[in-house]
Amino acid sequence: MSSDADDFERMWRDLSPVARSPSSGGYFRQPFTSAEREATAWFLEQAEARGLDVERDRFGNLVAWWRDPLDEEARGDASGSSRNQALLTGSHLDSVLDGGAYDGPLGVVTALAAVDLLRERGHRPRCPIGVGAFVEEEGSRFGIACLGSRLATGSTSWQEARALTDRDGVCFEGALADTVVGDVDLLASVGTFVELHVEQGRDLVDRDQAIGVASGIWPHGRYRFAFTGQANHAGTTRMEDRHDPMLSYAMTALAANKQARVSGQRATFGRVDVRPNGTNAVPSTVTAWLDARAETVEHLDALLADVERQAQDRVGRDGTDLTVTAESVSPAVHFDPALVRAVADPHDWPVIATMAGHDAGVLSTAGIPTAMLFVRNPTGVSHSPAEHAEMPDCLVGVSALADTLERLAR
Amino acid sequence: MSSDADDFERMWRDLSPVARSPSSGGYFRQPFTSAEREATAWFLEQAEARGLDVERDRFGNLVAWWRDPLDEEARGDASGSSRNQALLTGSHLDSVLDGGAYDGPLGVVTALAAVDLLRERGHRPRCPIGVGAFVEEEGSRFGIACLGSRLATGSTSWQEARALTDRDGVCFEGALADTVVGDVDLLASVGTFVELHVEQGRDLVDRDQAIGVASGIWPHGRYRFAFTGQANHAGTTRMEDRHDPMLSYAMTALAANKQARVSGQRATFGRVDVRPNGTNAVPSTVTAWLDARAETVEHLDALLADVERQAQDRVGRDGTDLTVTAESVSPAVHFDPALVRAVADPHDWPVIATMAGHDAGVLSTAGIPTAMLFVRNPTGVSHSPAEHAEMPDCLVGVSALADTLERLAR
Repeated sequence: MSSDADDFERMWRDLSPVARSPSSGGYFRQPFTSAEREATAWFLEQAEARGLDVERDRFGNLVAWWRDPLDEEARGDASGSSRNQALLTGSHLDSVLDGGAYDGPLGVVTALAAVDLLRERGHRPRCPIGVGAFVEEEGSRFGIACLGSRLATGSTSWQEARALTDRDGVCFEGALADTVVGDVDLLASVGTFVELHVEQGRDLVDRDQAIGVASGIWPHGRYRFAFTGQANHAGTTRMEDRHDPMLSYAMTALAANKQARVSGQRATFGRVDVRPNGTNAVPSTVTAWLDARAETVEHLDALLADVERQAQDRVGRDGTDLTVTAESVSPAVHFDPALVRAVADPHDWPVIATMAGHDAGVLSTAGIPTAMLFVRNPTGVSHSPAEHAEMPDCLVGVSALADTLERLAR
Repeated sequence: MSSDADDFERMWRDLSPVARSPSSGGYFRQPFTSAEREATAWFLEQAEARGLDVERDRFGNLVAWWRDPLDEEARGDASGSSRNQALLTGSHLDSVLDGGAYDGPLGVVTALAAVDLLRERGHRPRCPIGVGAFVEEEGSRFGIACLGSRLATGSTSWQEARALTDRDGVCFEGALADTVVGDVDLLASVGTFVELHVEQGRDLVDRDQAIGVASGIWPHGRYRFAFTGQANHAGTTRMEDRHDPMLSYAMTALAANKQARVSGQRATFGRVDVRPNGTNAVPSTVTAWLDARAETVEHLDALLADVERQAQDRVGRDGTDLTVTAESVSPAVHFDPALVRAVADPHDWPVIATMAGHDAGVLSTAGIPTAMLFVRNPTGVSHSPAEHAEMPDCLVGVSALADTLERLAR
């Protein structure tokens, strides 16, 4: 086994037990919890062992910089301008609730292993190479996906983010309070971003390929559906006297699924909050979150409108009320076409679309030329303890990322 | 205003703020919480102020006894046998989550006010009269309704109850540990039980009557429906590749409602637990509780079978799994017909059925002749902050209960 394989496997073995549930085997790495702090401590150790300079911004995002002497000389020569040519890679360390091991961490571990491999090859980059870990990519705690990269790029303002609360009412600013942060713009010098990620579908399996390159990301919206009815006794209240928001919700969940199926888009109700949530009480409110994704913003708007219309029809029949709030809507992302070709063409890697949001999408939308590499996922399952990538494919990922960085940092 | 009206209103004013949510106006009086301890402390004060002897059994149930000298003499005369002639009234102090003020407490406050009124009238009962407060009537913490009266009558054993757990994993025995309990059989001497309760429907409104008497209680079952699927990414997983338990649940909730409507029974899904409950994850499991009530056990069984059949059909189409567990099933209750007539006839109170479970049903099933009085509820709404009874109707309830106790304790 080559030393880079050893290296990758050792890192994977160290990181894998952090915040894994003994019962489900899934991960609970919500930002600014002890679980995520443990993953961050692991990252800092890895950076230190490699002599990388770590910077942290005031939102908690981290970058470990490999600044080679050649690069330092170049910077000296060209004064400030060439600082824009830094190359950033990495991903995130947080997970959805009960998520898998690979979504996020695979990109961070692979980035560190790629730095090792480039050093082994004797490569001396002409620009700084950063290994980044963005905060709250999943939005599993504060409800906005890619919150760390959105703050770093300014696409979400501190003013908007500071008061976001988690399910226990803890605000983002409060949760950050115990984290040692700096006051640095991590992206100021970044000219290109490359994120490697486990694939979250089965395109690469169907194509019999270990590595793919993303063309772009589908538009994505999260919408809160708040159904309000009247709490009442589950035994004594005649069926015809009820205003039961559970029924309005149930019909809406089925309608969203059907609408997505017939239109070839995606719609999911995966989160529900029922009040008072008692067995013998007709609920007073059912709040449910629609996750919708579509090929274009027009398709996304049409999907939402269809679901909302059917929900309102049912609400009218149930005598309940419905308020729909868009919590976040991300436009389509088209990664820099020249960069996509430069990454994919030398290896004939397939170029595929994705329906999942990523920090890469946020940085691309903010104007930083960005590419994404995917590593094959044999089942396509993701956001689940069953998420997986085979070790040989992960190691192909390390050399694929190293090759890409080597070419871009020349 | 008469002094008994003053007395009732003062008690109501003292008890009403205990554990009321400032936001919803609803009550959270789960057993062995600080909220319920406060309500219990109020009960003990009231008993002490009236010189009633309080007994508590090892499950936390309370009875405050009015033992008049006449009664003491009678007991002395007749040795042990007449002890079976004690008359018990009262209800419970706990509430559903975010419940109303009247369900339970109205029966306890009215019982204390009725004792006052009987004393004012100079009535000297020939048997002890007890004012009781049973524990966990709603089953809102440990999942079994009427748990306190079931334990007191022996229809649920301590062995079955001790290990019941609440949503935080606290077991019944552990929750009881901080409560000072005795070792007495509260029901050993009870010959008759009379429970007064706010009506939980609109039968009395429709009949333009302030007071009604219960003929019996419909059979009632609580069934846990555990739907299992496969957690997955809400964006990247093709609709046709999903095994989404939310869809199986949603169809089942609609089917249960429809089945109850067409058959004239009751079916409610008011409690749902989703895992991992993340916006961007197809759930791995959806657990939901069906509350079903029907005219007869045969109708109840048929209702459950119809709902389960439709659920299994859908589960087959969704590629999910379903396990149905009966958490509790209560048979029909027919209150002692002679007692019902003895209570209702002198006042021409209407005799009506109820679909709600009560401690009265448990005591009746255990062989104690039992009657229930209902006080009109202008909206019929119950298990909700909007639950209400008008003060004049509550005061009619006090004299109705006093009249009934006076007749039965002669």
